Amino acid sequence: MIHVVNGPNLNLLGKRETEIYGKTTLADIQRQLEDLAFCNSAEISFFQSNHEGEILDYLQKLTARDQVILNPGGLGHTSVALRDCISAIDSTVIEVHLSNIFARETFRRKSLISPVCKGVISGFGSDVYKIALNWLLERV
Amino acid sequence: MIHVVNGPNLNLLGKRETEIYGKTTLADIQRQLEDLAFCNSAEISFFQSNHEGEILDYLQKLTARDQVILNPGGLGHTSVALRDCISAIDSTVIEVHLSNIFARETFRRKSLISPVCKGVISGFGSDVYKIALNWLLERV
Amino acid sequence: MIHVVNGPNLNLLGKRETEIYGKTTLADIQRQLEDLAFCNSAEISFFQSNHEGEILDYLQKLTARDQVILNPGGLGHTSVALRDCISAIDSTVIEVHLSNIFARETFRRKSLISPVCKGVISGFGSDVYKIALNWLLERV
Amino acid sequence: MIHVVNGPNLNLLGKRETEIYGKTTLADIQRQLEDLAFCNSAEISFFQSNHEGEILDYLQKLTARDQVILNPGGLGHTSVALRDCISAIDSTVIEVHLSNIFARETFRRKSLISPVCKGVISGFGSDVYKIALNWLLERV
Amino acid sequence: MIHVVNGPNLNLLGKRETEIYGKTTLADIQRQLEDLAFCNSAEISFFQSNHEGEILDYLQKLTARDQVILNPGGLGHTSVALRDCISAIDSTVIEVHLSNIFARETFRRKSLISPVCKGVISGFGSDVYKIALNWLLERV
Amino acid sequence: MIHVVNGPNLNLLGKRETEIYGKTTLADIQRQLEDLAFCNSAEISFFQSNHEGEILDYLQKLTARDQVILNPGGLGHTSVALRDCISAIDSTVIEVHLSNIFARETFRRKSLISPVCKGVISGFGSDVYKIALNWLLERV
Amino acid sequence: MIHVVNGPNLNLLGKRETEIYGKTTLADIQRQLEDLAFCNSAEISFFQSNHEGEILDYLQKLTARDQVILNPGGLGHTSVALRDCISAIDSTVIEVHLSNIFARETFRRKSLISPVCKGVISGFGSDVYKIALNWLLERV
Amino acid sequence: MIHVVNGPNLNLLGKRETEIYGKTTLADIQRQLEDLAFCNSAEISFFQSNHEGEILDYLQKLTARDQVILNPGGLGHTSVALRDCISAIDSTVIEVHLSNIFARETFRRKSLISPVCKGVISGFGSDVYKIALNWLLERV
Amino acid sequence: MIHVVNGPNLNLLGKRETEIYGKTTLADIQRQLEDLAFCNSAEISFFQSNHEGEILDYLQKLTARDQVILNPGGLGHTSVALRDCISAIDSTVIEVHLSNIFARETFRRKSLISPVCKGVISGFGSDVYKIALNWLLERV
Amino acid sequence: MIHVVNGPNLNLLGKRETEIYGKTTLADIQRQLEDLAFCNSAEISFFQSNHEGEILDYLQKLTARDQVILNPGGLGHTSVALRDCISAIDSTVIEVHLSNIFARETFRRKSLISPVCKGVISGFGSDVYKIALNWLLERV
Amino acid sequence: MIHVVNGPNLNLLGKRETEIYGKTTLADIQRQLEDLAFCNSAEISFFQSNHEGEILDYLQKLTARDQVILNPGGLGHTSVALRDCISAIDSTVIEVHLSNIFARETFRRKSLISPVCKGVISGFGSDVYKIALNWLLERV
Amino acid sequence: MIHVVNGPNLNLLGKRETEIYGKTTLADIQRQLEDLAFCNSAEISFFQSNHEGEILDYLQKLTARDQVILNPGGLGHTSVALRDCISAIDSTVIEVHLSNIFARETFRRKSLISPVCKGVISGFGSDVYKIALNWLLERV
Repeated sequence: MIHVVNGPNLNLLGKRETEIYGKTTLADIQRQLEDLAFCNSAEISFFQSNHEGEILDYLQKLTARDQVILNPGGLGHTSVALRDCISAIDSTVIEVHLSNIFARETFRRKSLISPVCKGVISGFGSDVYKIALNWLLERV
Repeated sequence: MIHVVNGPNLNLLGKRETEIYGKTTLADIQRQLEDLAFCNSAEISFFQSNHEGEILDYLQKLTARDQVILNPGGLGHTSVALRDCISAIDSTVIEVHLSNIFARETFRRKSLISPVCKGVISGFGSDVYKIALNWLLERV
Repeated sequence: MIHVVNGPNLNLLGKRETEIYGKTTLADIQRQLEDLAFCNSAEISFFQSNHEGEILDYLQKLTARDQVILNPGGLGHTSVALRDCISAIDSTVIEVHLSNIFARETFRRKSLISPVCKGVISGFGSDVYKIALNWLLERV
Repeated sequence: MIHVVNGPNLNLLGKRETEIYGKTTLADIQRQLEDLAFCNSAEISFFQSNHEGEILDYLQKLTARDQVILNPGGLGHTSVALRDCISAIDSTVIEVHLSNIFARETFRRKSLISPVCKGVISGFGSDVYKIALNWLLERV
Repeated sequence: MIHVVNGPNLNLLGKRETEIYGKTTLADIQRQLEDLAFCNSAEISFFQSNHEGEILDYLQKLTARDQVILNPGGLGHTSVALRDCISAIDSTVIEVHLSNIFARETFRRKSLISPVCKGVISGFGSDVYKIALNWLLERV
Repeated sequence: MIHVVNGPNLNLLGKRETEIYGKTTLADIQRQLEDLAFCNSAEISFFQSNHEGEILDYLQKLTARDQVILNPGGLGHTSVALRDCISAIDSTVIEVHLSNIFARETFRRKSLISPVCKGVISGFGSDVYKIALNWLLERV
Repeated sequence: MIHVVNGPNLNLLGKRETEIYGKTTLADIQRQLEDLAFCNSAEISFFQSNHEGEILDYLQKLTARDQVILNPGGLGHTSVALRDCISAIDSTVIEVHLSNIFARETFRRKSLISPVCKGVISGFGSDVYKIALNWLLERV
Repeated sequence: MIHVVNGPNLNLLGKRETEIYGKTTLADIQRQLEDLAFCNSAEISFFQSNHEGEILDYLQKLTARDQVILNPGGLGHTSVALRDCISAIDSTVIEVHLSNIFARETFRRKSLISPVCKGVISGFGSDVYKIALNWLLERV
Repeated sequence: MIHVVNGPNLNLLGKRETEIYGKTTLADIQRQLEDLAFCNSAEISFFQSNHEGEILDYLQKLTARDQVILNPGGLGHTSVALRDCISAIDSTVIEVHLSNIFARETFRRKSLISPVCKGVISGFGSDVYKIALNWLLERV
Repeated sequence: MIHVVNGPNLNLLGKRETEIYGKTTLADIQRQLEDLAFCNSAEISFFQSNHEGEILDYLQKLTARDQVILNPGGLGHTSVALRDCISAIDSTVIEVHLSNIFARETFRRKSLISPVCKGVISGFGSDVYKIALNWLLERV
Repeated sequence: MIHVVNGPNLNLLGKRETEIYGKTTLADIQRQLEDLAFCNSAEISFFQSNHEGEILDYLQKLTARDQVILNPGGLGHTSVALRDCISAIDSTVIEVHLSNIFARETFRRKSLISPVCKGVISGFGSDVYKIALNWLLERV
Repeated sequence: MIHVVNGPNLNLLGKRETEIYGKTTLADIQRQLEDLAFCNSAEISFFQSNHEGEILDYLQKLTARDQVILNPGGLGHTSVALRDCISAIDSTVIEVHLSNIFARETFRRKSLISPVCKGVISGFGSDVYKIALNWLLERV
């Protein structure tokens, strides 16, 4: 199954700072991705949490047959635990960021988890989820 | 409403390391602030958690009419997620620290959240809460 | 028109170090992308050079109606001139890397051009071109 | 006595860059603080200088019965002599900054004098003086 | 009582990456330590969590009569809150790591909690728990 | 003879990003400088290239009787080869920059070639060429 | 009016270390500039001080109609107060240095005031004043 | 055979700075370890030197059947030669430190030899030798 | 075949800065090496360019039967593209420098290409070519 | 003549922080040095100022026949102007510090003026003046 | 005379880690070099020590007529004393390393002695000695 | 007794690099100091070694009644063992350097032992010994 996992503050998407991030909510994205998965006869699971621990709990249950689209939010820059978790599980994990993190504050340019992910997609707004999903669907 | 939000370990205030931090507990502080708010016909809400996620959940529900006195504890030095959350919400947030963090270990001198707060008050012991509350009450 | 621009050493793709980069050559990739573009009634132009100056000459001629998929090779880490050029032109530029540059040597993790590109796609092998092209085709 | 000491360029307050710092002048602030002190039967002394040496001369004359509200201006980031002076005298010194220095250029985030001050108040505009004075008046 | 506290991802021990960490699970370790404690008429309590907050909650309840063997996992490198918590409580805390953290990535070599622990034992595989427990048992 | 040598992207001057750099083109500047040189009975040669190698080829042919006004563009921050070339030739070389490079991104503040140039003029827009030429003409 | 402001030790020009800085004194420079200004019907004012505070006092009195040629001497590398002052006043300020500061000790290569000046001229000996004055005279 | 190797200044143990390191001398420790080895029918050899060269000479003679408990003293932070020696020999080497080196000066926190040792035990006073010996004895 | 490849500015050898580099020209060196190769019945090819791209073009054509003596000039310190090229080709590459680069400016001490070359010879003047050639000839 | 020049805060010597610096005042030191000079038929001049500018004014008047014992106080760590001044004048300058600055805060360990002084004497309390004077007297 | 001086651990050459360094022992190398020297009627002296002090003693006795091939082992990265010694003596010293030190750990890339040696040869296995000797023999 | 201890290479004093260090040998200095001590009825012991270990052996035998003038040579910048030794013994230790180490290479400006010495005297040539001895003799 394909899991779309979202870190802290991504539940605010489309509700706050809409002048920057647009008015697409996480629910909108979920619907789009579910449609896209359905057309490809794939199953999709959607998850968001502000709790690092809950994200770890979620990821730890996955197996080699699972695939993950992960938007770590702020955790990507600070959580060694998240990195260790991705290393430990056998799932393919793709890191996505809505904004181009390389064009922002210095501390956002270093992602602890990038080295243990399959690849990174950053800066295409909410399209990053669809881009990642498309790649996963084609690979099957 | 005015929210007094306290990060990890602040529930130990007045119970441990009393030779450093004094014997005033967080409950004592809460009572003082509630009295002060009552005298000014203001409403106050008090919150403490050792869980970063719970603090994010709490803050995300606030609106532009809310105001926050935030003692982030150790999270201020490490949590990009907390910084992102403060950026996202519309409430005025004041960062307070009981001790003068600039007179302590090097890693405590860099606060990730200071740049997105209205202001910083550091080093007056438990009075930092009252100082912040007074300023908020006067501004109304 | 969509331009696929490749920096130094990418002409060796599929011929050297095939155990790392696979046997797909740049010509193979060109054919795939041309097919994909043709199916979408889009025009595509393919370019590779080992000369920084030639890449600058090429990019400078583009206009706001052009779109660029750029694999800068080693130049992305060292060329301020390439960065200035991307800033100056009005075309949308997408940065792609075959390997996950964040899982490699330290000096490869800092890209000078990322901050002036629309977005970054890194680590999906030769699929990065197709991913970028698909996104550009959908946007039209 | 309570001494309000202001470093270089603070005499320009309210006259230059008013779009940033507002139209309150240092004279306005002085009047407000004097009123506030008068109501509390406290004495207040106001001082501003562009000369590091004059500020040192002023501070050196103070005793343990004096209390200082110090806005060091640019000197706070560069003057070891000012730090040594604060260490040497017995007065309580509170460091205040009109703007939130942590949200500005990197070199402003490091204050040499913070470690030897009682506390720091930063980012509430001209209110920082009143906040500090209130705290000092209550403590008496 | 002696508390064995394990941070994020340690519940995966013996189940994932067994070629690196061996096939001993956390449950196996728990049984060994309980046997060892029983033979020495000591009581032992075992705890694991992926949630920083739960670990803080757990540790805060301990007293000077408790002793802790702490494997912080990734939290040891990032959590100022965990450090503050260890400083605040009166229990003796021993930091253990299965692998030799000094032979791994640079960011793993700096532990925020080492300076506030009694001592550090790193690199003897799952034996680190037994080594620490033996030392605690002998000291009683 | 006096040589005005321009590095990468300066051919775009006055055509792109005109809101920043103004509408004066490199051709305009060339005409102005040629007029100024003509009035002073001096000969002038104008050169621009996006190719580091061509600039090196050009400079290497100069002798002690030649004088150079060099706007290195992005090469000034990255090219040790350009620095070595300036060191090797006997011509007086003046480094000019249209914008004040010290007020821009950090990586632009370090120029590899400044230490081997006669002097640096930065930040007066297209006037930097005229300022440098005037100084050279007066010195003859 | 055009103000030529000189920082610490520039009064020694032409009297000490003449083998490095030549025998032109500050008085000689003043005479040359006054002549040049007179020929252009411009007024000029000359000022030197070893006291940071006096330089701040002087600059603070200037208005948008004034223009400044500033040789900060050693203060340019260390004085945040001088930087703040230049930011605050509305006059155009040109930073000049007799020697090429980029070819000297590392600590001289970083100027705190360059980012808030109009431009920088460095390394043409005492001609830097004349170059700056000429540019100012032409602009009128 | 098990070798206990001690670097510079450890011969002073128990004789100087006893308020810090206690009154247990190296001879005392030797006796304890010999007793413990004897009870386990193991042979032990004790060595101390202030000379880096002698320690290298000693270690180079060991074989894969030897095991080493090494307290490098100050050499651990500075000696690449010691690191190379440990890499070259086939013996298991355990690094021990009496004090918790992570709670001391910054330069003590980086050990050059840790990455090539089996493991590190730091901060349990003179017990570190016994802890290491016990582990070695159990492994046989 | 053995290829002697020279980077930017090496064509100036023996013509400029002869007091430092001596009067031996690159042509002289070529003649000496050709003689030496002829005596050993080996073929030699000589190449110099100021263009990074031409050097890459040249190197990319080589096979495992080719061997390279490479004096990268300034490119060795700045060109990731050159490093990638050397990694990609199968030829043995020896890095040579006329001067002892470790006794010069800091930025010259870091060579990007050294880690991917067979070895480095630095500081014996024009003899470095002969030393490298001799070693290659003996190995055949 | 021999000049004893004291920077900021040294006038407080013996009056504040006497538990650290002792009860010897600057006046006491002056008397001792004058006696010592008198016995050696040497003339001595004593100067203290909190103003950087006054110290520069004072030093600039000295000639090659003058000799200086300079306790720069905090200025030694921050004043490039003071360094330039010492470089410019022809007098022998000896830097003295009452405390051992190398055993104090990190920012005190770097003295900007040491490289341009004849020598440095640090850490013998008020004896540093006498030690320096003795050396100067013997040299005559 | 030509002296071949070897630092710590080089006596282990060919005996330990033979999969990396090969089976050539230091005795083998000595024999080869002696043969080569004999054929050229040159005298050679061979020395190895694990003691920094003995190496210094050895080198200090040499004169301008002596020449040194020095493999410093780990000392090259750490010993200022060795650097000072090479500076002090008049012999030509060539630094050699068996492995390419630039392709290894970061701390091995910085050699303290390179700046005071004639040249550096690194990465050709045990041939580095022969390469250096050949160059010395030819120069005579 | 007063011990004058000299580190590596100081035995070369007056014999090598005499243009820098003068022609005074260590024996000359010894004679001068012995005369000076004799006149003051003090006993003096002189020691030099190129071996760190021998210097440690020597220093470890001293007691609180001994006093040390220590010229550590290169060891002062690299030896944690020497620092630990000085910390451990009860003798007063004065660090002396012939040259002004602050005016030399960067790596010489950091002395590991300064923080644990009584004081530092640097830059008066061979007089540093006499200056230190005089201070010790007066203190008795």
